[in-house]
Amino acid sequence: MRIGIIGTGVVGRTLGSKLVSLGHQVTLGSRSKDNENAAAWAEQAGADGHAGTFAEAAAFGEVVLNATGGTVAVEALRAAGAEHLAGKLLVDVSNPLVFGPDGGLTLDPVNTDSVGERIQREFPEARVVKTLNTVNCAVMVDPGRLAGEHNVFVAGDDADAKAETVALLGEFGWPAGWVIDLGDITGARATEMMMPLWIRMYGILGTGDFNYAFQRAK
Amino acid sequence: MRIGIIGTGVVGRTLGSKLVSLGHQVTLGSRSKDNENAAAWAEQAGADGHAGTFAEAAAFGEVVLNATGGTVAVEALRAAGAEHLAGKLLVDVSNPLVFGPDGGLTLDPVNTDSVGERIQREFPEARVVKTLNTVNCAVMVDPGRLAGEHNVFVAGDDADAKAETVALLGEFGWPAGWVIDLGDITGARATEMMMPLWIRMYGILGTGDFNYAFQRAK
Repeated sequence: MRIGIIGTGVVGRTLGSKLVSLGHQVTLGSRSKDNENAAAWAEQAGADGHAGTFAEAAAFGEVVLNATGGTVAVEALRAAGAEHLAGKLLVDVSNPLVFGPDGGLTLDPVNTDSVGERIQREFPEARVVKTLNTVNCAVMVDPGRLAGEHNVFVAGDDADAKAETVALLGEFGWPAGWVIDLGDITGARATEMMMPLWIRMYGILGTGDFNYAFQRAK
Repeated sequence: MRIGIIGTGVVGRTLGSKLVSLGHQVTLGSRSKDNENAAAWAEQAGADGHAGTFAEAAAFGEVVLNATGGTVAVEALRAAGAEHLAGKLLVDVSNPLVFGPDGGLTLDPVNTDSVGERIQREFPEARVVKTLNTVNCAVMVDPGRLAGEHNVFVAGDDADAKAETVALLGEFGWPAGWVIDLGDITGARATEMMMPLWIRMYGILGTGDFNYAFQRAK
């Protein structure tokens, strides 16, 4: 499959490398044509990894992944071009982290809105699915690195898009039974709002190698 | 130990009954002297269960538990009286749920503040610990009803108050190793912001009998 990734940070590059290793063709898109991260990534990724602009990556992809920061996601996707997103599965893995008044990380939007919803509103013809934003990128593409069963979420308005996302998660190593469907795209609020706990736990554990699991009644 | 519980809803009554069963003396405090919930609870709780006003419950307790809703907690504790909270462990188990503009449940405060912090600011001489607000009251007092290991959090500015809370959680059945210390009272933001996910999961599972656990690297 051809996949366009918007964003050349560690999340975008990690997703890109995993997708190439799985046999997909990937274009990693950046704001400017001469992004060094993207060029270096494409160089090491081999014949199936390409670097381009946001618009080139989005046009290339049958599926598009947003791996920019949540606070700049809508702007980056505008640069990618609504015409290159229409009808496509658009997977959003971002969190809208911003430094708050007391210097700690906070979310914007939060509570009554989310990045996932903003993207879906801005690009109504894209089929947006929020997922993977509750784990760091090492766990995103290798859930087996953690002990035992643990969970990831999908939220989106389009059932087929969620099913395609669950299949993609399966390629990453997430059994379908570990994926929890939170319903429509407003479920993105719930997963983005898990970030403050994730950040605290990262500070306590000294690693991003952890994830949530659900325990049920005996 | 003498424990004052502020709030006569299902959370307050469940905590009260468990504490009486553990051998503590409990006064369940309500806004008005003639609260029927509190009177009925005291009737069935026996000699160690009493009903009173917010102020009577707080004055009675060596430890005070806030089991009112998070949006009315500060007002209820003002009625309880700062002089009855000073120096005491004040355990806050509330969440500030309010209906949002689209009819769904949202949080107020959120993101840059929390109920736990508001209570600590309003009653600087109380030793506030946020805990248990991430699980429903059945799980609060009987964590063994769920399968396997799962986690609960404490957040507060006073280390001794957190140690006393961990001991109280131990009486409820929470092994100390299941309790995660999130640091100072601003950690209350992180746990209160887990509510949106909890509410979604409650809708999906059809029960409040679940909790989060952390999976670590192999």
